[in-house]
Amino acid sequence: MKELCPRFEKAMQLFGKRWVGLVLFELLEGPKRFSQMETELPISGRLLSERLKMLEQESIVERRVYSEFPVRIEYVLTEKGLALQPVIKDIQNWAEAWVTEEEVAILKEDLPTN
Amino acid sequence: MKELCPRFEKAMQLFGKRWVGLVLFELLEGPKRFSQMETELPISGRLLSERLKMLEQESIVERRVYSEFPVRIEYVLTEKGLALQPVIKDIQNWAEAWVTEEEVAILKEDLPTN
Repeated sequence: MKELCPRFEKAMQLFGKRWVGLVLFELLEGPKRFSQMETELPISGRLLSERLKMLEQESIVERRVYSEFPVRIEYVLTEKGLALQPVIKDIQNWAEAWVTEEEVAILKEDLPTN
Repeated sequence: MKELCPRFEKAMQLFGKRWVGLVLFELLEGPKRFSQMETELPISGRLLSERLKMLEQESIVERRVYSEFPVRIEYVLTEKGLALQPVIKDIQNWAEAWVTEEEVAILKEDLPTN
């Protein structure tokens, strides 16, 4: 375990950043354009852009630019990002089984902030 | 998905809090006394205590007091906490496969802080 600690902690820090899980969740459905994600997620464009940049830096997300007119930009999970599928699935299962309505209500009050 | 969002997000926020994953990791090995965890984890007693209190509030950890002399206090995962085993395992697998030495090195420089 001692050997694993720093890697594990690094991964936990990454997922723990607010909305990162949700962005990954979105991209597990397939490549998406920015505007599409902006519509589907309850966060601001600025924040979405920040998170995508961070995930790009971590080599989890790839930004693909297609030289069409108008230019088309898509975000897609890399192999490293796709490998997160089991993690996301398990967290989803756990949340569905164990996170209560009350906890969700508390979180909702908190939603409009970053 | 829209239905799941808040539960999922709540779960992500929980795991994302620094050291929470590591504390869960410890307790998946079985019930532990505070002093034992303090020895095994690279965090301060104060911080460990904070995290355990938070996990107690979330009904993920149970604090068991045995009325012996001297009093024995153990921390143990609840059913809700034990249900996190697949999540922790998957994050561990992913981190082992994908988190690089460089990333770990960067994290290490950062370790002595809270």
